[in-house]
Amino acid sequence: MNLGYLSRQKQLEKLVEKLGLPKDAAIKWDLLDLALTHASASATANYEQLEFVGDAVVRLAASELLFEIYPDCSVGEFAAIRSILVSDRILFKIADSYGFDRYLIVASSAAGDKTGAETRLADALEAVLAALYLSSHTLELIRPWFDPHLRQLAAEIRSDPARQNYKAALQELTQGKHKVLPKYSVAETGTVQGGEDRFTAEVRLHGQLLARGKGRSIKAAEQAAAREAFIKLKDS
Amino acid sequence: MNLGYLSRQKQLEKLVEKLGLPKDAAIKWDLLDLALTHASASATANYEQLEFVGDAVVRLAASELLFEIYPDCSVGEFAAIRSILVSDRILFKIADSYGFDRYLIVASSAAGDKTGAETRLADALEAVLAALYLSSHTLELIRPWFDPHLRQLAAEIRSDPARQNYKAALQELTQGKHKVLPKYSVAETGTVQGGEDRFTAEVRLHGQLLARGKGRSIKAAEQAAAREAFIKLKDS
Repeated sequence: MNLGYLSRQKQLEKLVEKLGLPKDAAIKWDLLDLALTHASASATANYEQLEFVGDAVVRLAASELLFEIYPDCSVGEFAAIRSILVSDRILFKIADSYGFDRYLIVASSAAGDKTGAETRLADALEAVLAALYLSSHTLELIRPWFDPHLRQLAAEIRSDPARQNYKAALQELTQGKHKVLPKYSVAETGTVQGGEDRFTAEVRLHGQLLARGKGRSIKAAEQAAAREAFIKLKDS
Repeated sequence: MNLGYLSRQKQLEKLVEKLGLPKDAAIKWDLLDLALTHASASATANYEQLEFVGDAVVRLAASELLFEIYPDCSVGEFAAIRSILVSDRILFKIADSYGFDRYLIVASSAAGDKTGAETRLADALEAVLAALYLSSHTLELIRPWFDPHLRQLAAEIRSDPARQNYKAALQELTQGKHKVLPKYSVAETGTVQGGEDRFTAEVRLHGQLLARGKGRSIKAAEQAAAREAFIKLKDS
């Protein structure tokens, strides 16, 4: 769909409608316009500063939701889930589901960069979250449409850790805290091909065993071990 | 001062008064109580989950303030300043200025741990920020007393980067992004003892020069170089 025939204001109203927000929502349209303008289109009036604020907004939205819906969760698991929820990969998916690329103003020179496109949409979503937050200084223009995405993703992450990238989260944690990368070793411990527990992975830090995990593939076993280790380190 | 003679409610009211908040502020007192209870005092009802939320609240408060007061700042400098503002060292100082240790319930077994005391106060401040945020779902109980601290610190950081720990911020950034630590080399380039520019530091990544910095001490020169490199990498 080409939105070029619509005025910028009409475009932005269309997006707001898509997000399910009321027509008369008190939105700072100038900020929303800025949030959907890439640096390639304007070196001075673009989404960069808003993206910086939005990084904190998305973190708060995720934290508040987890606090509300999982009262019995450990903070280690909270941190693990949040690190995934606020990742570019997830933010891109959410932005893409609303077709953010149709609303983002990008110079044609930059538009061809396909690998940059995902980052741009994730960044633009953060900037939009900042624009909506700064419109009311609350999350009330955000939670109604953003929470359902986070809720579903958080439930998926909790039910199937192997699908999520705990290895990346663990690596980030150990590099920051211990200045060293975790090491994995995997053994085939099950006998039934394709069985749930075919592989067992162990993850070590400085040679010391952090955690074990099982899975039907090497990758799944490593992710399960990484998840255990991540939660253990975060809670310690 | 020993506050043991006061009821818990009176203690919390005293702290709220100290923060300069109005007496009739709509505060969720049960959350504030929780925010000032260490895990050593209760394994289940303590500040840990609130601290998790508070980490996001303090990040948002810092981001919003920087966005408002430094409209011409690059996002690289924003990120550098924010990483310092939300650090445990700074949060401890703020918590300590209000005598948080008098309000925090800690088991006597843990209270003797002096090195843990700073972290505990920083964590408790984050938890208090979460309790205040969750009382109104806005920053209105936070900004009136918290902003002045952030404002002053941000101004100090901007005017004298060598006083702040940009080396730590740069290290965190390069480990996360490039899986490698920055390397410093310093030369005595000035002639006057104690002169402003006595030392020049260079910081490299994978052997490649990132930035140079000058200072009156080796440490100051390294910090100045780290600051330049941090901002450059963040903005790239």
